[in-house]
Amino acid sequence: MTIGHNSVAGDSLKSFIDRIERLNEEKKSIADDIKEVYAEAKGSGLNVKVMRRVIKERAMDKDDLDEFNTLTEVYWGAIG
Amino acid sequence: MTIGHNSVAGDSLKSFIDRIERLNEEKKSIADDIKEVYAEAKGSGLNVKVMRRVIKERAMDKDDLDEFNTLTEVYWGAIG
Repeated sequence: MTIGHNSVAGDSLKSFIDRIERLNEEKKSIADDIKEVYAEAKGSGLNVKVMRRVIKERAMDKDDLDEFNTLTEVYWGAIG
Repeated sequence: MTIGHNSVAGDSLKSFIDRIERLNEEKKSIADDIKEVYAEAKGSGLNVKVMRRVIKERAMDKDDLDEFNTLTEVYWGAIG
């Protein structure tokens, strides 16, 4: 493949990179929105670490979460 | 702060979590789109690692990039 100035491949590469850069910007903008919501929640007295944990747990499969919690208790017991 | 079933605080927490979960989904969807563009680029014969490097370099401040490249050459020279 030849990547040269004004070559078709160069235009195609440029187009891919433009698309990715635009998507990266959108992703960054959403990440900023998420930070803002957490800041707002913190401002209203909520614990952000606990919120992140709850959100992570809600995204997990129920059985996986149960097993994870049970094993956590077992591990705590083992070093108790 | 009281977090109870049907309490105002609970509703407020639920609303924050719903907003974050929606935003997380949007972010995930964009991340998937980015993966698709890279896959398409790869399919057309482009090297994805090089593309990622170019995109990273384009996002950098010009002076920082120049310094980084110069130092890289210096380090290569030092172990040459």
